[in-house]
Amino acid sequence: MVIAEITVTPLGTGSPSLSKYVAACAKVLNESGVNHTLTPMGSVIEGTLDEILEVIRKVHSVPFAEGAQRVSTRIVIDERRDKDVTGKDKIASVQSKLAGK
Amino acid sequence: MVIAEITVTPLGTGSPSLSKYVAACAKVLNESGVNHTLTPMGSVIEGTLDEILEVIRKVHSVPFAEGAQRVSTRIVIDERRDKDVTGKDKIASVQSKLAGK
Amino acid sequence: MVIAEITVTPLGTGSPSLSKYVAACAKVLNESGVNHTLTPMGSVIEGTLDEILEVIRKVHSVPFAEGAQRVSTRIVIDERRDKDVTGKDKIASVQSKLAGK
Amino acid sequence: MVIAEITVTPLGTGSPSLSKYVAACAKVLNESGVNHTLTPMGSVIEGTLDEILEVIRKVHSVPFAEGAQRVSTRIVIDERRDKDVTGKDKIASVQSKLAGK
Repeated sequence: MVIAEITVTPLGTGSPSLSKYVAACAKVLNESGVNHTLTPMGSVIEGTLDEILEVIRKVHSVPFAEGAQRVSTRIVIDERRDKDVTGKDKIASVQSKLAGK
Repeated sequence: MVIAEITVTPLGTGSPSLSKYVAACAKVLNESGVNHTLTPMGSVIEGTLDEILEVIRKVHSVPFAEGAQRVSTRIVIDERRDKDVTGKDKIASVQSKLAGK
Repeated sequence: MVIAEITVTPLGTGSPSLSKYVAACAKVLNESGVNHTLTPMGSVIEGTLDEILEVIRKVHSVPFAEGAQRVSTRIVIDERRDKDVTGKDKIASVQSKLAGK
Repeated sequence: MVIAEITVTPLGTGSPSLSKYVAACAKVLNESGVNHTLTPMGSVIEGTLDEILEVIRKVHSVPFAEGAQRVSTRIVIDERRDKDVTGKDKIASVQSKLAGK
């Protein structure tokens, strides 16, 4: 299991509001079947590396279909092979250590 | 108002678990007074640009105090000057457009 | 043609020096056949989206083969569909505008 | 000494070409006195943490002065405290290890 964050940003669209494009990307994420959560700065997704790369391939192309001519997609992939950790586990681990401080 | 995402990562610490360092950073964020939320891939913070730069200065140094010798800090700063938008507003705007699809 | 930047970072390896892992990734990039350049903060690569995703799949796994238990891979994909632009073109365009300032 | 990569991206400007804004940022970097190099995906700068934060503060605001209404600035800060390493040192270290493979 891999945790990744993906942010797809169309450039040069003519308006500082990008939510139309982000919603179109979120729709593709919803249909992809991978576990994902929207944050104010991107989407956190969980799956195998192959599932995540396939999701990147799909969502990166979405703004072009919506009329954008340039797209910048930012991704961070975090993979541990010593144990399986979900995004919820990561937050719970931090909060438990924080409670002890 | 500016929305930013900050991820502070100590390198070469000897264990794949980093939650000890992330908790120490979260403690500094809690004490900073800026509005912030922990995600599985970083912290989303809201404030003025000067407040955010000051937070970066503080949290980037935290893992060194915890014994790390190298720290990689990743930041994305998103600022709109046409209107004030919070992280919650951004998500609500996407979800409202998504509901119409 | 797409321009991307990829940075592969093993976590928890026990030493602040990571050049052994970066060199192993660079070897895989060299063998991949895609156009790429090493910078102090990552590698800039040029190719089709499919070529770039395949390179990400390969280089992300390299530090595990070198003994790392956790890997963080950061990617930015920049694609224009209005015209073909290489990394060299991007820099030349900035420098030409800079010369006029 | 800290090595950082900064990429300043205006959003919603109406044209996929952004070199006008990047050149204005490069001018500010040139005037700042910090050591910096333009790559196809951003600028690599070297200095103290305080110098780098001051540079971020300045360049992030540049596209607004050029008419943009929204700016996304991406930064990665890499600091080692076990030894002083420049960007050139990092590349030389990788290439020396690559030569031995």
